[in-house]
Amino acid sequence: MTSANHYDVTTWPVGDPTEDIGEVINAIIADIKARQTVTDEDEGGRPGAVIYIPPGDYRLRTQVVIDISFLRIEGSGHGFTSSSIRFNVPEDEWVDLHELWPGGSRILVDLPVDGEGEPTGAAFYIERRGSPRISSVEFLSFCIDGLHFNPDGSELHPENTYVNGKTGIYVANANDSFRINGMGFIYLEHALTVYNADALSVHDNFIAECGSCIELRGWGQASKITDNLIGAGFKGHSIYAENHGGLLITANNVFPRGASSVHLNGVTRSSVTNNRLHSFYPGMVVLAANSSENLVASNHFLRDHEPWTPFVGVDNGLDDLYGLLCVSGSNNSVIGNHFSEVIDSQSIRPIGTTPVIIRLMAGGGNYISSNHVVAMDVHAKSSDSAFSAQVDALLTTEASDGLAITAVMVDSESARNTILDSGSDAQVSADRAANAFRATPAIGF
Amino acid sequence: MTSANHYDVTTWPVGDPTEDIGEVINAIIADIKARQTVTDEDEGGRPGAVIYIPPGDYRLRTQVVIDISFLRIEGSGHGFTSSSIRFNVPEDEWVDLHELWPGGSRILVDLPVDGEGEPTGAAFYIERRGSPRISSVEFLSFCIDGLHFNPDGSELHPENTYVNGKTGIYVANANDSFRINGMGFIYLEHALTVYNADALSVHDNFIAECGSCIELRGWGQASKITDNLIGAGFKGHSIYAENHGGLLITANNVFPRGASSVHLNGVTRSSVTNNRLHSFYPGMVVLAANSSENLVASNHFLRDHEPWTPFVGVDNGLDDLYGLLCVSGSNNSVIGNHFSEVIDSQSIRPIGTTPVIIRLMAGGGNYISSNHVVAMDVHAKSSDSAFSAQVDALLTTEASDGLAITAVMVDSESARNTILDSGSDAQVSADRAANAFRATPAIGF
Amino acid sequence: MTSANHYDVTTWPVGDPTEDIGEVINAIIADIKARQTVTDEDEGGRPGAVIYIPPGDYRLRTQVVIDISFLRIEGSGHGFTSSSIRFNVPEDEWVDLHELWPGGSRILVDLPVDGEGEPTGAAFYIERRGSPRISSVEFLSFCIDGLHFNPDGSELHPENTYVNGKTGIYVANANDSFRINGMGFIYLEHALTVYNADALSVHDNFIAECGSCIELRGWGQASKITDNLIGAGFKGHSIYAENHGGLLITANNVFPRGASSVHLNGVTRSSVTNNRLHSFYPGMVVLAANSSENLVASNHFLRDHEPWTPFVGVDNGLDDLYGLLCVSGSNNSVIGNHFSEVIDSQSIRPIGTTPVIIRLMAGGGNYISSNHVVAMDVHAKSSDSAFSAQVDALLTTEASDGLAITAVMVDSESARNTILDSGSDAQVSADRAANAFRATPAIGF
Repeated sequence: MTSANHYDVTTWPVGDPTEDIGEVINAIIADIKARQTVTDEDEGGRPGAVIYIPPGDYRLRTQVVIDISFLRIEGSGHGFTSSSIRFNVPEDEWVDLHELWPGGSRILVDLPVDGEGEPTGAAFYIERRGSPRISSVEFLSFCIDGLHFNPDGSELHPENTYVNGKTGIYVANANDSFRINGMGFIYLEHALTVYNADALSVHDNFIAECGSCIELRGWGQASKITDNLIGAGFKGHSIYAENHGGLLITANNVFPRGASSVHLNGVTRSSVTNNRLHSFYPGMVVLAANSSENLVASNHFLRDHEPWTPFVGVDNGLDDLYGLLCVSGSNNSVIGNHFSEVIDSQSIRPIGTTPVIIRLMAGGGNYISSNHVVAMDVHAKSSDSAFSAQVDALLTTEASDGLAITAVMVDSESARNTILDSGSDAQVSADRAANAFRATPAIGF
Repeated sequence: MTSANHYDVTTWPVGDPTEDIGEVINAIIADIKARQTVTDEDEGGRPGAVIYIPPGDYRLRTQVVIDISFLRIEGSGHGFTSSSIRFNVPEDEWVDLHELWPGGSRILVDLPVDGEGEPTGAAFYIERRGSPRISSVEFLSFCIDGLHFNPDGSELHPENTYVNGKTGIYVANANDSFRINGMGFIYLEHALTVYNADALSVHDNFIAECGSCIELRGWGQASKITDNLIGAGFKGHSIYAENHGGLLITANNVFPRGASSVHLNGVTRSSVTNNRLHSFYPGMVVLAANSSENLVASNHFLRDHEPWTPFVGVDNGLDDLYGLLCVSGSNNSVIGNHFSEVIDSQSIRPIGTTPVIIRLMAGGGNYISSNHVVAMDVHAKSSDSAFSAQVDALLTTEASDGLAITAVMVDSESARNTILDSGSDAQVSADRAANAFRATPAIGF
Repeated sequence: MTSANHYDVTTWPVGDPTEDIGEVINAIIADIKARQTVTDEDEGGRPGAVIYIPPGDYRLRTQVVIDISFLRIEGSGHGFTSSSIRFNVPEDEWVDLHELWPGGSRILVDLPVDGEGEPTGAAFYIERRGSPRISSVEFLSFCIDGLHFNPDGSELHPENTYVNGKTGIYVANANDSFRINGMGFIYLEHALTVYNADALSVHDNFIAECGSCIELRGWGQASKITDNLIGAGFKGHSIYAENHGGLLITANNVFPRGASSVHLNGVTRSSVTNNRLHSFYPGMVVLAANSSENLVASNHFLRDHEPWTPFVGVDNGLDDLYGLLCVSGSNNSVIGNHFSEVIDSQSIRPIGTTPVIIRLMAGGGNYISSNHVVAMDVHAKSSDSAFSAQVDALLTTEASDGLAITAVMVDSESARNTILDSGSDAQVSADRAANAFRATPAIGF
């Protein structure tokens, strides 16, 4: 009976999904495996299954462990609502709120992590050794909610720390053709962590108010992170990848307050194109550890100030000389990006320095062309209302005064770069004998 | 019982969905609200629900009113077919047609609008006051069909007017993380109207033969309009946004005949990148009302002539000096776009003028680089067959003669712009003392 | 009864879907048509239906024939796993493999093609004559598996030939608003073949290990191929289109080993933007047969060597003078692309020549600006492990030595081109009297 491969967590006889959906899904996976007994002689036999999670609240007290290919877990709603805003509303006003928690097909991650962190604190843990690599596991359209953050020893409100040792989905070893689509992740220290990905698709998700959002670790190739709404916490990465080749990061709208918007470590021949990136700190896009031959093009970078009172004063520890885009690698292309730096000159660190937009720190042979930098000195303001403050800041285009910036700074450790039409002669700090340079023409030139 | 959160309009006991799906859905929403009685103390309680609409025809005589978060309304097919072509087929040939109407999971909007228009004429009306903002309402994979247009006093066939006072989805106040995905909208005066959006995703929809398609009104931030097939009527907007920041408009294929392809009003720090845009009129992309610090990059602009007889002679009222891209704002970046202007020189208005491609009307500090303009003088032709005429026009790349254009025109109200490699000296009309300019090199230069 | 429009192949009374899902789906389509008897007088009547395929293995021995609009066929998993890797594992190791075949909602194409090929060998065949064009047929989230390739007379292992006469989906004539989304295609000689498409969407699919992947034939307009993971065989096309206008090809990650990544034949006013393209041969993007006024921008091109032993020595027959991007057409824009050519200089053919990156073969008026070429001479290596060899090659950024290339070669048959900042004076081979040229500035310039 083929349709035995369609499961619903609310009708499965083992366990109570509202009390522990982890126990239920693990029992379903055991059932799938028990039924996949054919010898594979007949061109088939292990097609996997779909597990459906209707809208509702499902507490997860047992980690789901996945070691079969072709498993789809699917809900009917990413269910995002801002827990961050809610936790920063005075408690006596909560009674007036329409709802207090995220919704949709919602997993409440309630693992006894006790500070152990990943992967113990992962709601969904995927691991399989041997061959072939586990393939085509799909997560669609449900919500993974870490519920609360914990005190971190700082003066921050505990719910603002982005620390709780919880992970949404953790893929421990080599995998192929996985698909994460239409999901919601919230209040997790790590939303999605994937080791050794091949042809992974992370598409059209809502990943916000998590410590880190998307982390591709180990190594990997030929994956795509596309068309997501993403925003990490101040300690973490919105999009991170290491030792990947042929990664396509495009059409994402990455909002604050991640320590970085896109951080690539030893990543080669990949694309960061056509994204909208917004941050409250320097170091928005980082090409580190000899990340080389990448294309960073047609992106919109906006760096302005934290407008929301609970996070004013928090930052990622980088100063304004670091650059909004910082490259330690070779032969990259940085073409046709727009940069808006909208800051209060009183806040510049180190004091008295000129903020850097593009920094070439090490490596060489990079090609920087046709980038446009807009810089404004504004009076930083903050507000108790997260949303209206941010919109207000976004729509302000009046400078109090001109703001001097260094459009491109090339360190002496980086050479043979080509810098074209990306800043005036005064705005580009580079050894003209070691790099090729053409200034953006000035008026009346 | 959790799976009570999955509804099917065809099995709900109240009302008859084929006669009035509005009544049915409102009854379901009332049921959802009645069941969401928990106190929210236990980290949950109001997860919403999914309402499923199987393929079929469902008349809507009562407006659906939504005031709960986490509601997904989902069908199984966007069901587009061209009503515009059908209504322009002689009536005595209708008997030979395979089908006369759109299909899929199809809502027939049959509200007694009586000329009142929005929001009375909206099939789906979303409004909730107080906090938090209504969140994560999702519309997926069904068809909203306005059925007919009405006479507008002109000589146009009534079904060609794009006027009927009907709206598909109307979101009246501040909202977060909404999702419109895989939908079809047709024959509505307004397809999708959203006020005060935050992190809205309008993705992979089919929105055509509507007066206006996507309208983001009020103000908003951090939203995306991606990967849609869109084409408004000659009176309306394909994509419109006002007072938005951080909006990402990318990967859309926008076809005629919208009065504009993308119209931004007071929009800042947003991206219009990587779209394919096609229009029969000037004013394809408009950055109005001090729209500033936006990136318009890697788009393909095609402006040619209306090829289909029923609409020949109709236009949006703008003349050829207006520009295909018209900017009234500051510090925008226009980089790496392709423009094809393929028109009959006899049709140019004002007569005897030179058509403008990029017009900087007011503001300043814009950066215009690496844009390529192709211009052709062709003999305009029209045909009774909408599809073959348009394909025919699209594939024609033979000019009758050269067509002179002004690649960039900078008005005296706009200054301090930088214009690089986007036209020859003769093709760029700008005060060289007030703007920076480098001509595209000429042959043998 | 409206919900009669939702079918499940596993519960339909006619036929056995595990033995012949083709027979079952054809019977369902007959039922849909029999029930669509209304006269269309009442603004409706032929809404189509959805046919659901749960996860499982379904043999297809009868071709599915579709001639109704608004039909959605939907599964719950694209089910990709690499058959190519598996078939190249020694047979005595198969017993140790976790699974041998793709999965998800999987169609096993078992048609008696007997070498007849298309369209006889098509699993899904769509054809309808008359008006209107068949519209809004949707294929979602299932797997079409051609199972095996056949000997082709070469020395290749039969499973490596990419030849079996099978096609996944074949659309024979004019169609509108079709949708292919979330599908998996594997081991088919042709995955998706569509004639005369209008407003087609091919989005977010996994199409790999097929002879050719996406072929848009005949003519067409206003379609999009977006956000797919694609990789054809060495004989075929990953993305092919002919006589199309207004086609948007974006956000795709196209991996080897297609004979081409994107091949456009007589295509006009279309976009190839923002893709990640990887190939083992020249001729990655081909604009042939007077393909004109297209935009090729913000793409990442990587050409390196076949790293996997079973295919070493196989190529597409083109030599290194052909160009990674080859244009025979006019008025195209090639802007802001990154090219990495990472090859063993010993392998260059013809021996002793300088490899070409961008070749303008015929036509004229093309605009080539702000492209960055990186070239490396590496020692080609191969491995028995497909995945690790490829990742290894991808991450290697150390050259054994400099590699001389011709960044842009303009044949005498092409003139009036403009070439800016896309190579040094020595790297651009073009008649300076017939083309406009500005060299990328050199260091110390």
